[in-house]
Amino acid sequence: MARILLTGFAPFNNETTNPSWQAVRQFEGKLSNNGSPIFVAELPCEFHRATEELVSLIERHQCDIVLCVGQAGGRAEISLERVAINMDDARIPDNRGQQPIDRPIEAHGQAAYFSTLPIKAIVHCLRQSGIPAHVSNTAGTYVCNHLFYGLMHYAARNEQIWRAGFIHIPYLPEQAIAHPGAPSMSLDTLVSALDKAIETCLEQGQDLHFADGTLS
Amino acid sequence: MARILLTGFAPFNNETTNPSWQAVRQFEGKLSNNGSPIFVAELPCEFHRATEELVSLIERHQCDIVLCVGQAGGRAEISLERVAINMDDARIPDNRGQQPIDRPIEAHGQAAYFSTLPIKAIVHCLRQSGIPAHVSNTAGTYVCNHLFYGLMHYAARNEQIWRAGFIHIPYLPEQAIAHPGAPSMSLDTLVSALDKAIETCLEQGQDLHFADGTLS
Amino acid sequence: MARILLTGFAPFNNETTNPSWQAVRQFEGKLSNNGSPIFVAELPCEFHRATEELVSLIERHQCDIVLCVGQAGGRAEISLERVAINMDDARIPDNRGQQPIDRPIEAHGQAAYFSTLPIKAIVHCLRQSGIPAHVSNTAGTYVCNHLFYGLMHYAARNEQIWRAGFIHIPYLPEQAIAHPGAPSMSLDTLVSALDKAIETCLEQGQDLHFADGTLS
Amino acid sequence: MARILLTGFAPFNNETTNPSWQAVRQFEGKLSNNGSPIFVAELPCEFHRATEELVSLIERHQCDIVLCVGQAGGRAEISLERVAINMDDARIPDNRGQQPIDRPIEAHGQAAYFSTLPIKAIVHCLRQSGIPAHVSNTAGTYVCNHLFYGLMHYAARNEQIWRAGFIHIPYLPEQAIAHPGAPSMSLDTLVSALDKAIETCLEQGQDLHFADGTLS
Repeated sequence: MARILLTGFAPFNNETTNPSWQAVRQFEGKLSNNGSPIFVAELPCEFHRATEELVSLIERHQCDIVLCVGQAGGRAEISLERVAINMDDARIPDNRGQQPIDRPIEAHGQAAYFSTLPIKAIVHCLRQSGIPAHVSNTAGTYVCNHLFYGLMHYAARNEQIWRAGFIHIPYLPEQAIAHPGAPSMSLDTLVSALDKAIETCLEQGQDLHFADGTLS
Repeated sequence: MARILLTGFAPFNNETTNPSWQAVRQFEGKLSNNGSPIFVAELPCEFHRATEELVSLIERHQCDIVLCVGQAGGRAEISLERVAINMDDARIPDNRGQQPIDRPIEAHGQAAYFSTLPIKAIVHCLRQSGIPAHVSNTAGTYVCNHLFYGLMHYAARNEQIWRAGFIHIPYLPEQAIAHPGAPSMSLDTLVSALDKAIETCLEQGQDLHFADGTLS
Repeated sequence: MARILLTGFAPFNNETTNPSWQAVRQFEGKLSNNGSPIFVAELPCEFHRATEELVSLIERHQCDIVLCVGQAGGRAEISLERVAINMDDARIPDNRGQQPIDRPIEAHGQAAYFSTLPIKAIVHCLRQSGIPAHVSNTAGTYVCNHLFYGLMHYAARNEQIWRAGFIHIPYLPEQAIAHPGAPSMSLDTLVSALDKAIETCLEQGQDLHFADGTLS
Repeated sequence: MARILLTGFAPFNNETTNPSWQAVRQFEGKLSNNGSPIFVAELPCEFHRATEELVSLIERHQCDIVLCVGQAGGRAEISLERVAINMDDARIPDNRGQQPIDRPIEAHGQAAYFSTLPIKAIVHCLRQSGIPAHVSNTAGTYVCNHLFYGLMHYAARNEQIWRAGFIHIPYLPEQAIAHPGAPSMSLDTLVSALDKAIETCLEQGQDLHFADGTLS
């Protein structure tokens, strides 16, 4: 039996909602198909504190699968993030006013970590279920990538964590109204996507391998 | 009591589904809030024949509100089309192999017709309901614009038609999988949008007027 | 011998330059290949006054070919505009603070006019010359479309005008810096495009006809 | 005195030209402002062989600044790549038919390397010169990222290499014709951008630091 942690973020950048927490909160108190408990949490959109709270939750709940979710305004698909890089470069201040620029997240950390989620298998499963998804090769350089890197850095030192990674999701339709022309995805679709991602994490052994890269 | 005609299109351009008909068919046999009957139909994606079938349906059902719906692959929002132009310029052949290029739809028709739907009121209502929507100033030069022009040309000569126009909708999520990066909208959201468009047509007297144009 | 009027616009929307005037001013005092004089002018980005100044220039210089040029921020290609619609819907105020919304340009004018430039022949010529170009089916609902409609409305009543139309051009590279991700085109390319458009207007009899429409 | 290597790529993906080699070849036999020799080469668009030829050129010419350039079809700006990742995921076969999927470039290599070019200083200089530029956080997962990773892996083991990195550039205008709606940049602008990048590499000590990251 696995123990699963699913996190979303607080709203940021003048939004009043964050689709990641809206979707993640639907799993509160739920079990996976095989009866694994799912713990959920909303993390602050703040450098450092987001990671600290995440690590504290992992330890408190003794989780072995960790799936962090964040908003990617402007993207049209569910993004399975492939890689976290050791770099903060904040285009805008975070919710506490911090704006690190060109600063390593971990002073002596390695340059990057790859996700240990079965990202291709999740993309495959989502597409089979009628949900647009792809592998993304950048999680940006803001709090999402910061948390993702912090998670993988922690996971690399803690053997009990079997699978860890980050998923970016589009705006909700009601958010997209304030961003003319921006794509969105309904809450139902988002929740269904996270549900399938969790099940794939539990069921899939080795990841699948089919082409889903980008030329540039 | 109004009599409402709602049409979608058959799949085209190598698609196996068309979101317009998927959404429109949900209204089969339904009444509007005030009890007005809603007639639905799937039109062929063919120049001329689409318009002929539309006119035949209007006459058979004695409709006074006509709302045609079509797929706009690549758009992220519900598009209330403002204007139909008297021009076919088909980038690809239609489902019968016809490919008119730079040809007027009506040899002696006026250059364009404006929608008689309360397009701004519908955009306002959709946004209030959390659905991204905008006024579009081009319905393209393919079968959608052709049908829209044909509808307005007919309506201009038939006093019983109170309101007529065209709405473009995004891909369904399952379609967008084949179009990497393309926005989509869930069937639930599409149906809700059409429902609200119908209700606004029935309830709204004069259209609203707020800025929703484009600079270019 | 033709007499050609080429106009650009003053900067608007917080820009300090307008690529249309930067490109058009390069033709000051120039002759076409066949010796036809080219008159140039910068028009104000103002509803009504832009058209008034245009008409006054056409009459003063007795022009028979009129080519108006405007900035289409965000577009990547040279846009040969196909149609002007009888509608103002200003997303932002013009340079004089006017912001007409859903207002016909000419109270009793026809719904739209088609360009009388050989737009397909120009697109063909530009592509042959290595310059990305396409036919556009909307010039927006701001001052550009307003001027284009005003021009065509005037031209429809004045037999001496042989050809008239509107061309939208991308940002200059230096402008695009302030619009992250926006396409741009160099001044050299823009000037070359206008030069070829003028020559095509002079040399081309009937327009060409190849598919260059849009599905939606 | 530095010794500079500037490389472009051969055409790929059904193109007949590659803007990277078109721009790079203009520097053949040139010296930088301070008299440093610039060596140029066209590399094959092939996994492994591109890196092998690059390393051979670096050693033959004893270069200490290495700037590799590649085409990023669909981007509008000059992209200073921040990071190379240890992963091949080829969406299409390379020019020799190889299509590695989810395969590390170096079996025991580190997950990623950061560019040692003064990327922010170059972005700043280009913008000051009127050329749209930005820092990119993904060079994709095709031959460009493969070469970039191979370069940085080699450079990490060779003290004589002072600066090394990768720059992605848009399509040329003549290429964009085959990609409707795609941005492009003129050869003059591309050459000017590379010239300024080289000069910044030579003149700049520490890199500049201003926000140029992405939220996602």
